[in-house]
This record gives sequence, C-alpha cells and structure tokens, in this order.
Amino acid sequence: MAISLQAPTNLLPIAGIQIASTGAGIKYQNRDDLVLFELCESSNTAVVLTKNQFCAAPVTVTRENLSICKPKYLLVNSGNANAGLGKKGINDVIQTCKAIASEADCRAEEILPFSTGVIGEPLPVKKITDKVHNLVSNLNENSWLDAADAIMTTDTIAKGYSEQLDLDGSRVSITGIAKGAGMIRPDMATMLAYVATDLNIETSDLQVILQNAVDQSFHSITVDGDTSTNDACTLIASGKSGIKLKELSEQAKEKFITVLNAIFLKLAQAIIRDGEGATKMICIQVEQATNKLMARDIAFTIAHSPLVKTAAFASDPNWGRILAAAGRGSDKALDIGKLSLYINELEVIEDGELSENYNEGGGQNEMQKDEILFRLRLGLGDAEATVWTTDLSYDYVKINAEYRT
Amino acid sequence: MAISLQAPTNLLPIAGIQIASTGAGIKYQNRDDLVLFELCESSNTAVVLTKNQFCAAPVTVTRENLSICKPKYLLVNSGNANAGLGKKGINDVIQTCKAIASEADCRAEEILPFSTGVIGEPLPVKKITDKVHNLVSNLNENSWLDAADAIMTTDTIAKGYSEQLDLDGSRVSITGIAKGAGMIRPDMATMLAYVATDLNIETSDLQVILQNAVDQSFHSITVDGDTSTNDACTLIASGKSGIKLKELSEQAKEKFITVLNAIFLKLAQAIIRDGEGATKMICIQVEQATNKLMARDIAFTIAHSPLVKTAAFASDPNWGRILAAAGRGSDKALDIGKLSLYINELEVIEDGELSENYNEGGGQNEMQKDEILFRLRLGLGDAEATVWTTDLSYDYVKINAEYRT
Repeated sequence: MAISLQAPTNLLPIAGIQIASTGAGIKYQNRDDLVLFELCESSNTAVVLTKNQFCAAPVTVTRENLSICKPKYLLVNSGNANAGLGKKGINDVIQTCKAIASEADCRAEEILPFSTGVIGEPLPVKKITDKVHNLVSNLNENSWLDAADAIMTTDTIAKGYSEQLDLDGSRVSITGIAKGAGMIRPDMATMLAYVATDLNIETSDLQVILQNAVDQSFHSITVDGDTSTNDACTLIASGKSGIKLKELSEQAKEKFITVLNAIFLKLAQAIIRDGEGATKMICIQVEQATNKLMARDIAFTIAHSPLVKTAAFASDPNWGRILAAAGRGSDKALDIGKLSLYINELEVIEDGELSENYNEGGGQNEMQKDEILFRLRLGLGDAEATVWTTDLSYDYVKINAEYRT
Repeated sequence: MAISLQAPTNLLPIAGIQIASTGAGIKYQNRDDLVLFELCESSNTAVVLTKNQFCAAPVTVTRENLSICKPKYLLVNSGNANAGLGKKGINDVIQTCKAIASEADCRAEEILPFSTGVIGEPLPVKKITDKVHNLVSNLNENSWLDAADAIMTTDTIAKGYSEQLDLDGSRVSITGIAKGAGMIRPDMATMLAYVATDLNIETSDLQVILQNAVDQSFHSITVDGDTSTNDACTLIASGKSGIKLKELSEQAKEKFITVLNAIFLKLAQAIIRDGEGATKMICIQVEQATNKLMARDIAFTIAHSPLVKTAAFASDPNWGRILAAAGRGSDKALDIGKLSLYINELEVIEDGELSENYNEGGGQNEMQKDEILFRLRLGLGDAEATVWTTDLSYDYVKINAEYRT
C-alpha cells in the first residue's frame, strides 16, 4: 500500500555500531520486536525527543540517562509504548535497563530505552528481560535490516537508507532506519529513527547537526496532526572511520551534511509514503510569505485540513478547500489579489482569479497522480516552507478505529 | 443519521420578520434553495462573520453593506458558496442584491447576501434573479420551517428552535434556524444561523449579546477543524413586541439572555449532532486549567485529534490518545501527577495513575453511548472550557471525498 516505497535490501554496516534483534512476543507473534544497539567507546550520540508533555516512561528515562552519562546501549521495543502508566511505567522500563546492564556489565544509566506501540498497557517486562542474554550475545554489525523490521508497528514496509561518501579522499558511511506510521507530525510522533555514521563528530556539533536535519525532515511531515508520547530521533557518530568532521575541508563538511540531511528527508518521506491509509503523498510548498513561521503555519493548516485530505483521496481538484485552509492558517494579513496556486505544474489561481487556462479535467489529471504538489505563492515576501502529508482515506479510519480490537 | 436530533415541526413567527423561500435550482433540484428575509423598520440586526481571510464574496458585501446602512433584507442561497471567484464573485452577488432592491424598491446596500455550498463555481445569477419577484411577493411570517429546509447543504435534517417567554408580564418570542454540517469549528464554518426575537434591543447591545451567545455555542463546536469562507450568524431584534430590553428588570433581562444563549447552544449542538458522518456527539470539558485559553487549547486539540475521533467511532476507550492530545495541546506546563480523566461518570485516571476501579469493559460501555463526555481535570487552577465535536467515521471520508462528484 505504501506510495512508491521499496523496503531496503541492503543497509551498510557502520563500524563501531553492533545490533541484535529478536522476537519477544510483546504484542506481535512470529516476528522480531526487540532491538539492542551497542555503541563503541568512541561513539557520540545526539537525541531529539517528543515535546509531548505526557511523554512515555522510556522518554523520561532516556532524557534522564542522557543527562547522567554517555550512552552505551539503545534498547528498543515495538508493540507497547509504555505510556500513560505513571510510576509503574518508569519502574518497568528501569527494570529492563537493569537487566541489560547486568548482562553487559555496565551501568543501567548507560542504556537509552525506546518504546513504540499501544499506549496504556503495562510493559511485559519479563518477556523483555528473558531475551536480554540472547540480545547481548548476538550483537553484530550486519543487522540493520533486521532492526528496521523489528521496530515497525502499523508500518506496512521497513524504512532504511545508506550512503557511502568520499570526504577529502576518505570513505565514510551513513545508515539510517525509521518507523512511522500514524501520529506523525512536527515535534515528532510514534516515530523512531536511528541514524549512524562512522565519522567522528563531537557531541555539541552532533546535536546541532541532528536538530537541523530533523527540522527539514521529521518536523516537516504530518499524517494526522497527532503527536506521539514516544517519538525519538537518534544520531550516532561512532568515529570508527578515523575521520573527524572538524578536520574536514569546508566542502567535505558541506557534502556530509547534505547527504545526511537527504537521508533524514528520505526517511521522513518514507514515513509519509507509508502513512496510515495513505494513497497519495502530498507536498505543500508555501512561497513568498512574510516570514518562515507564517509559511509553516499556512502549510501545516493545509496539510491538516480533513477537507483538503479527503479531496486528495478522491482526486478532486477542490482548490477552494486549499484556499479556505490557507485563509485561516495565519494571523498575518493575506492579500487574495496577490495569491497564486499551482497543482503540480498546472496554474489554478493567478493573482486571486481562476487561471484562464485552468479547467477541471486538467486539475483532475494532476490530482490522480500518486505524488501531488500544492504550491501556493502569497506574493508578500520571500520566506517559504515545505511540508509533506498524506490524503485521508477510508483506510485511515479503519486502521485507527480497529487498532486495539 | 443525526444523533438524537428531530427536525423542528413548529417554529414561532416573529412579528416584523417576513420570510419567503423558493427553489431556484442552483445546485439541488426539487427543493427550495433560496430564502429572503424582510426585516421591519424597527428591526436591529447584528452579524458575526467568518474570520477566514479568503472570505466569500457575499461575506465581503455583507460586511460592506452593514457599514453603510441598516439592513432591510437578508438574501440566502444554498448550493453555491460564491467563494474563491475574485472580482466576478463580487459583481455576481451585487447583481442579485440589485435585483432585490429593484423589486422591493430599496437600496442595494440594504440587502445582506449569504451563500453556502460549493466553493469555486460561479454563482448562477440569472437563476436567482429570475426568482426575485416570486420571493418578494410571497413574504409572510410563517415560513421559518421552509427557510430551515432551504438553507441546508450536506445537512441531513433541518435545525430550528423557538421559545416563548414571559418577561415582566409581557410575552416575547425567539426563533432560530441554522445549517451545518462540515467545515465546522471556532470562528464559524459553512455555518449559517439566523435568530430573531420581537424584543426591542438597541444595535450596540445586540452585537454584544450576539458575540457572547456565539462564544459559548458556535465558537465552541468543531467537526473537522476546517473553517469556511462563508460562515455567518445573524441576530435580529424586530422590536414588534413593544417590549424594550433596556426597560426590563434585571431578572427579566437575565432570563432573556439565558433562553437566547440556550437556543444558540441547541442550534450549535444540532450542527454537531448532524455533523458529517457523525455517529457520536462528544463533549470535551477541560477543568482546573491555569486560564481559559489553556483550557480551550487543550479541549480543541483533543476535539481535533483524528486518533481520538476514530477511537470514539470504534467505541474504543483509548484514553491514551486523549492524554497524548492533551499533552501537546498547550504551551503551559502540565503536571501528569495532578491529572484526572473521566469518561462520562467513569473515572479513568486519578492523579496521573490508572484508576483502581477502571477496567476496559467499563470504559467500552461508556464509549458505546451516543453522547460521550470526556472530562479532564488538570489540577492547576480554576479556569475551564467546554467544546463539542463528533467522531471521525468512514462516512465523513465518503461525504467529503464525493461531495462534488
């Protein structure tokens, strides 16, 4: 069902990052649902966590542990979010961290826990701790594909990308995996992403690089406007290539950031392509706004409009709904007389009037495509924003009405 | 399909307000789609219009005309919104006003035009002007029911309420009609409402009374978060009862306002009960917030959450989704440890922990009801807000995907 999306067939190992995955039967049977990452001594790690105030227990513990020491392990489970469970949730996740610490002979605070799945059901701690020995003894560098599969919940397809690049004559690798698929929106979602490189990057730089990468990718996608209690995006630099970011030429630095950002964007778009019930990927580009915030507000208002999304599902070029959403999307004054709207390359509105060359048949042709671009020019300034979303289909309702039954 | 909603069978005439309705075949066939209200000389009128910046042509003209002179006629059509059509839209609506003015021998500026229906299709001016003679010659005081029918678009049932009340020994009447049914949310929607009373109320008082009535009713409902280009809510005081609001006792004034507000709320709730694809009416009450805005933000975030709405459709007591929506609903700090949640009278969360007496079966029982109350106590202050919404069903998608086809 995913829109022009292939499961990865090959993900490059990242020297210094070992992975094991296994099936603990947390919610799903006959598949892996538990992943352990081991990060080598020289690794630096940056994490962006959900801004939801009722964040899940693993988010609270991850935030706490990050403030105490450098992480050595990431423990990820799918099928249960361990959210909304008060003190019990915290105690449960700490138990799983202690089990890893005991098996791997490290401090419990060196483990960052992550969970994704149903909210409000107690974490089956024993099912997880029973698998700890298995996980720790099976760590290896070639399990990125298994990990991409194991972290899925309502995803229909695994998501992962790798790139190898030449930086000032040295070879560096980047591999990233992510999972969606609902509750996706800015400030993250039931979204987990793990991206690693063997480049050496200092922690302070790493956090800035991650924040910028996330802003133009995961913070610019939305399926349904809902934000999860569990979202987390992690960037690890193992340093095992022996190459240091800060010693690279400006050109090589820029090349690395460009490729890294592109991987983040592809992962974010993969989540949209596999959005719950999605039949189309819609890109909303708002141009010529007074400022960036205004452009983003309008783009997200269009992206969240159920009327725009159902029209897209029906391949209906209902541009009136796009304008109506734009018209309530910002506090800043808009001028209808300066506004232009394109669906893909087709001009629909020019300076506030229906374009002379526009007709419904042409509009419908564009709307029938799997990937649709709405480009709105406000004619006010030079700020812009781009946001990706899905349509709203019967299947979205079906998936979310039946999730727990 | 509407939830516990009956069509009105009797609406009281309001002395001084004459109404005619007819079928012009604007979009619908074999039904009325055009309404003319004539307001007697002593009438005062207050109007609240959509805040959507890309408002429809009739909204622009109504706003303009209100600033020029006292309105004498209201002309309402369904089936075509006359929105998104630039200068042509304005010229078209002015033509219809001129036709009424010519037939009724008044100024075109004394007519307030209102449209509801499809956006982006030219208004069929001739179909309307052809009916002007018919409308003006058939004005009478007993056509409120016909008007309630004629203004419907995707509504499945007409909406109207009347009350007669004794104020300091004199009899005063109030009658109101409204139409929904999608694009409903604060700041109005494809929502039109006309409420009239024979009480005499000065225009300045009338506007304040209308604003307060709308804040606790139409501005507290939402179906899908979309705001229409055409929403308008009109309150008319004909004065024909001979009773003046400002000469009433404080007790009688309060009684009138209470009854008027109740009619507005019933009309607003009727729109929710007949929301597109709605199978349940959900009331979200946020209590003990730091301030009113915070309470409203959280209530609306829950009301707009597609995950909460699909869970309601499935009668799934998925309280985790309610908490997740609340957790992203406000900039103000929340304290999970102080939070309580009830579904109807059933306590689900107490001080941030799952209530001891709660079980899924009990939760499901409550969620299966047609009318559900989510009551969230934040434990922070004493501000509160109440919002009404619908669930999100297959039929919502169906109605909005197929609206134009």
